[in-house]
Amino acid sequence: MLSDIDISRRAELQPIEAIAQQFGILPSELIAYGAYKAKVNLDIKQRLADNRDGKLVIVTAVTPTPFGEGKTVTSIGLTQGLQAIGQRACACIRQPSMGPVFGIKGGAAGGGLAQVVPMESLNLHLTGDIHAVTSAHNLAAAAIDARLYHEHRLGAEAFAVQSGLTPLNIDASRIAWRRVVDQNERSLRHIRVGLGANVPNALGNGPEHDSGFDISAASELMAILALSRDLQDMRQRIGRIVLAHNTAGEVITAEDLGVAGAMTVIMSEAIAPTLMQTLSGAPCLIHAGPFANIAHGNSSIIADDIALKLADIVVTEGGFGSDMGFEKYCNIKARQAGKTPDAAVIVVTVKALKSHAEACQSDTSESAKLAAGFDNLRWHINNVAQYGVPVVVAINRFQSDTLEELTWLREQVMAQGVFGCEVCDAFTQGSQGAQALAEVVVQATEAPNQFRFLYPLEQSIEAKLMTIAEAGYGASGIQLSAKAQAQLVHLKRHGFEHLPICVAKTPLSISHDPKLKGVPKGFELPISELKVSAGAGFITALVGQVMTMPGLGIRPGYLNIDINQHNEIVGLA
Amino acid sequence: MLSDIDISRRAELQPIEAIAQQFGILPSELIAYGAYKAKVNLDIKQRLADNRDGKLVIVTAVTPTPFGEGKTVTSIGLTQGLQAIGQRACACIRQPSMGPVFGIKGGAAGGGLAQVVPMESLNLHLTGDIHAVTSAHNLAAAAIDARLYHEHRLGAEAFAVQSGLTPLNIDASRIAWRRVVDQNERSLRHIRVGLGANVPNALGNGPEHDSGFDISAASELMAILALSRDLQDMRQRIGRIVLAHNTAGEVITAEDLGVAGAMTVIMSEAIAPTLMQTLSGAPCLIHAGPFANIAHGNSSIIADDIALKLADIVVTEGGFGSDMGFEKYCNIKARQAGKTPDAAVIVVTVKALKSHAEACQSDTSESAKLAAGFDNLRWHINNVAQYGVPVVVAINRFQSDTLEELTWLREQVMAQGVFGCEVCDAFTQGSQGAQALAEVVVQATEAPNQFRFLYPLEQSIEAKLMTIAEAGYGASGIQLSAKAQAQLVHLKRHGFEHLPICVAKTPLSISHDPKLKGVPKGFELPISELKVSAGAGFITALVGQVMTMPGLGIRPGYLNIDINQHNEIVGLA
Repeated sequence: MLSDIDISRRAELQPIEAIAQQFGILPSELIAYGAYKAKVNLDIKQRLADNRDGKLVIVTAVTPTPFGEGKTVTSIGLTQGLQAIGQRACACIRQPSMGPVFGIKGGAAGGGLAQVVPMESLNLHLTGDIHAVTSAHNLAAAAIDARLYHEHRLGAEAFAVQSGLTPLNIDASRIAWRRVVDQNERSLRHIRVGLGANVPNALGNGPEHDSGFDISAASELMAILALSRDLQDMRQRIGRIVLAHNTAGEVITAEDLGVAGAMTVIMSEAIAPTLMQTLSGAPCLIHAGPFANIAHGNSSIIADDIALKLADIVVTEGGFGSDMGFEKYCNIKARQAGKTPDAAVIVVTVKALKSHAEACQSDTSESAKLAAGFDNLRWHINNVAQYGVPVVVAINRFQSDTLEELTWLREQVMAQGVFGCEVCDAFTQGSQGAQALAEVVVQATEAPNQFRFLYPLEQSIEAKLMTIAEAGYGASGIQLSAKAQAQLVHLKRHGFEHLPICVAKTPLSISHDPKLKGVPKGFELPISELKVSAGAGFITALVGQVMTMPGLGIRPGYLNIDINQHNEIVGLA
Repeated sequence: MLSDIDISRRAELQPIEAIAQQFGILPSELIAYGAYKAKVNLDIKQRLADNRDGKLVIVTAVTPTPFGEGKTVTSIGLTQGLQAIGQRACACIRQPSMGPVFGIKGGAAGGGLAQVVPMESLNLHLTGDIHAVTSAHNLAAAAIDARLYHEHRLGAEAFAVQSGLTPLNIDASRIAWRRVVDQNERSLRHIRVGLGANVPNALGNGPEHDSGFDISAASELMAILALSRDLQDMRQRIGRIVLAHNTAGEVITAEDLGVAGAMTVIMSEAIAPTLMQTLSGAPCLIHAGPFANIAHGNSSIIADDIALKLADIVVTEGGFGSDMGFEKYCNIKARQAGKTPDAAVIVVTVKALKSHAEACQSDTSESAKLAAGFDNLRWHINNVAQYGVPVVVAINRFQSDTLEELTWLREQVMAQGVFGCEVCDAFTQGSQGAQALAEVVVQATEAPNQFRFLYPLEQSIEAKLMTIAEAGYGASGIQLSAKAQAQLVHLKRHGFEHLPICVAKTPLSISHDPKLKGVPKGFELPISELKVSAGAGFITALVGQVMTMPGLGIRPGYLNIDINQHNEIVGLA
């Protein structure tokens, strides 16, 4: 089979205007970025306000393994399959981060015959939204440190006179805003800034203090982009961001620093989602890119809003397993969007289940491994089912899967009382390989649905954390670090108790420990930190040692990426 | 008069396709980014290869003052004036950096009735080229530190076995590549990276070492973008970049690290220049953005190449005074482009000259100040004239200028033997205000031209530095720091002696000392560092304390920038 980029390059694409027109987007609502991608102007929301919403399907997965479960392949394949059976379908996905593109996997546009194309456009820059998030984020960081510098340099009184501004008295040891870069950058995780080498005055470029970089996907601005309803809403949210604390311990917001307007201006084009196409010519809206381990892991409300007004069925995905992006879809995004899922698809592979078993036992029989690993899938089925949403399991087929394995797995899944289960072969067969799945998903969206949130917002922060730990991960309880306990007091005092919780934890286990495969039991969830994202509208709970900045591995993906003598990109796969 | 952004917003723009068509660019050669900006595909170079080149005019200025001389206003005004008198004219300018946009001036698209529009598109993101430079640059930084980390973690032998790569033995104290961000970020000038807080192993995220951020405009990649002929040339140049040294003192290039291909891929869209329009509908190509104080300060060769094939006259500008961008145009860019200027325009204002006088004497008569300040202009006239290029002086008119002052100044200028001198009133009058200037500039491009470089490349590095110091700045000689002397030996040993010199120095004085206004004399040029930019193809000589990263001031520009209730951007001016 050809590589993903070769399939993408050889595909006959339609002009993006044609994709838009077939989908019901007017030429005047389109801002073209070349021939095959275009931003959709938010004016469309007003025109479509009276349309009925289509159905919303959220694609999730079992706990990830090194083999990759193919969630995006399944999401895009399902969209193609829905289109093939006569549904007006649209996929809504996140923009890939360039960090992992050059770090590990080389691309995140689906794969095989289920791709968003041109894949290199999706994987590189797209229409610049992540760059806008990065720039706006780092402007705020520069603004904090510049204010710190000038107030220290002059003293509060002279600063007030010379600047005409009220001194903020920022506490350099309690800055709440790090920097971001869209890279895998281990060496920037923890840095010391404001060093004074070669600077003639005593203050140098300081005051010196600790800082560090997260990957851009972890920026609160990325969450805000994903959760905003329009530009004015985004402006208000950015104003509420807690950037720092003053020496009296009070919060300093982006509004206080006077930088919220400029940050919004930098992100004013990013607020429009980007339209692309699948290999079958189905529309795909790409917008925002929060990871599900360190952020809320879902694409934007704005993109969903637009797609739902135009499509019969919208397919979107929550990052990683159902304990991650799906939980956050339900408890964070759905509340703000006012739209709950009509059905959920859990992606699984035979390989993944075997991998979950391997960690538990040394049995070498393939069928026994599969049976042992099935526990993980069963857990995810039950996890999704507790939200009251019809569940369909999609078995993403690999060449190595035997017919016996697929048959056995399908039987076991159906015995769990799910709405349906189909093998999906979109990777090698494209639309055709996902038609059976599409049929059952359509039926699932029409089935009875008793959606319920996992917790009410009115609960205390501790109660919400407890509910997520127990009902969301199967933990026996929570452990708050001393730091988290102090932060809890602080959050209550500043009136943030009513917010939902966004857990930052490893995606590699249902628990906090990446080594615990299958279905971990009897563990307490260790919460190391609690931070408010007042603009995004949630409290982030860091569980264990969470890396908000990936590192490059020993043989990074960039080694394979180049241009060839025809000026074509090679090595993205 | 309306603010720049209000003028821009109220202007009746033509679709960029119409601008392109009038200029001779085919629809198939255009990559639209919305309605009013489009990248021009490099395929056009092949189609136009047999066209005759138009004339090239380079706009420079006297030594800058805090009032701003209006070089871009004059460049854009001149282009509009040329168009008004029936010339097929095109402006080629640099992309503004967002650092200064949010730091000081709020925009860099010209001003008044001589603007590139829509000005907010030019000033914010444009088509993402600076973001691409930033990303590619920081990928290399991440790649260096990741390699350092893995080789230290495993040891050279185990690293070789596990990675299949040859160990590079990077010397952490001799990394030649900093990071970049398109911000004014004082606190990132000098940082310590790789700190190990919260990391379980002894190495942490390290090895710890010094690093820092420059503004993206200072990246060697920005110079490479400006100097490349095509994508393959860019690929080769990026491969030659010196990123670090090994423990034996040998250079490690981007090719050695295996990251040159991926960096090129990140910049593969940036290589196409962006077409916009002036307020009069004249074409303007925007490409690359090196500053003239810390880099070579000119827009791209590719943009000039395309514009010259389509236009009668191309107007481009070199940053700051003629000692800065103009010198570098002639001695760096013109050599690589194979195209020398047909005429030069020196922009001056009455205010600027008075400001140069003020520093020299306490005389309070306005006319005496103007007379005293004239020295600076005379120096720039002679500086440009020594390159053998016909000189036109453009007096950029301000409301406060009296007729007597303008008349006196024009007479004095003409007495210097320049080709012509005209008052330019493009700011308030648009095209009409620049027609007289346009007429004389056309004549100047047809006058005899004996262009000569300031120095031959075959000279030694010291001799080239001496020539620039003496003939280029009027210095009496050079002083090499001990560091620079050691670097000189290193550069010679590695075969970089044949490269031209790019001086990084203050733009605020012809000398190295920003306090020396007018025409400084009797100074020696202190060269603190010599660095090779092997990809760009020059040696950078740092003169005195050169800041390669600006800082935000006490009342930064971002305070005024916001969106209003109609979702319009306000405060860019």
